[in-house]
Amino acid sequence: MKRRILGIDPGSRICGFGVIDIVGSQRHYVASGAIRTPQGASLAERVKVLVDGIHQVIDTYQPTEAALEQVFVNVNPAATLMLGQARGACMTALVLKGLPVAEYTALQVKQSVVGQGKAPKEQVQFMVVTMLNLSGTPQADAADALAVALAHANHSGGAIGQLARSGLRVKGGRLV
Amino acid sequence: MKRRILGIDPGSRICGFGVIDIVGSQRHYVASGAIRTPQGASLAERVKVLVDGIHQVIDTYQPTEAALEQVFVNVNPAATLMLGQARGACMTALVLKGLPVAEYTALQVKQSVVGQGKAPKEQVQFMVVTMLNLSGTPQADAADALAVALAHANHSGGAIGQLARSGLRVKGGRLV
Repeated sequence: MKRRILGIDPGSRICGFGVIDIVGSQRHYVASGAIRTPQGASLAERVKVLVDGIHQVIDTYQPTEAALEQVFVNVNPAATLMLGQARGACMTALVLKGLPVAEYTALQVKQSVVGQGKAPKEQVQFMVVTMLNLSGTPQADAADALAVALAHANHSGGAIGQLARSGLRVKGGRLV
Repeated sequence: MKRRILGIDPGSRICGFGVIDIVGSQRHYVASGAIRTPQGASLAERVKVLVDGIHQVIDTYQPTEAALEQVFVNVNPAATLMLGQARGACMTALVLKGLPVAEYTALQVKQSVVGQGKAPKEQVQFMVVTMLNLSGTPQADAADALAVALAHANHSGGAIGQLARSGLRVKGGRLV
């Protein structure tokens, strides 16, 4: 059975998404993009745009599993709360479609895709382009989402991945 | 047309809900309770419990509008992010059922229900019991949710409420 992974990079204003296929040891690009929530809109309106957008992506590309970046900001409590709200809405959108959702920190994504956790953003984008054999560099949020999907593909290929797909819970690439 | 308000007090672990009817100038208690998310569960699992719980409340009591407490914690970024995620999931659950959602800060709820923003929790609970003519004191999270619903009833009874229900956006009792 073909595995198709939807990676999500949640943000308060822009939510990146990336879809890849795993065929044997190869990863193929399917689609990527960003969902933009209207500036100055209420939380209710932004949540609706986010959830409708994610559901449209799921309905169109029919992924078999999802990976959500574990965000963390420390700028100020208001920004952290807003980001948390967006992430909660993304998680809800995925869960309501019955997708198993793995979570990875930015550090884990970088370690998995570049080989070291402190890699700059450009290096992550370069590796996404290389690994998926893309003809151009995707927009930053889309590239981040593709990186999350690739990290999940790398983490879930082995024994842990098999167990995770059989119903056990994986968080940050480890069974919990 | 009878107005039935669903108040929600979102929390990372416990989400309080309270349903009241507005009949003329009177408010009647309909139902209240709390949705508890399993400790140590993944975000995906907790979000599912939250959304299923809220949808069950909506399907059972058929509210015509909702009011969500605007939470704010400053303890630490991780707690703030978790609370944000829970709040985002609650908002998503309400929006997906097509309910108009007003938002009120804890300060606004206290001002509206007790008359002053720095009222202790016990005084809010006392006023909830008095205003809704309850025979006992509801559990703390349920009482908070009923207070949010009462605050919305108070704010939305006048001209602003009429406009809000006609489709304009209300945040914290003010048109925005």
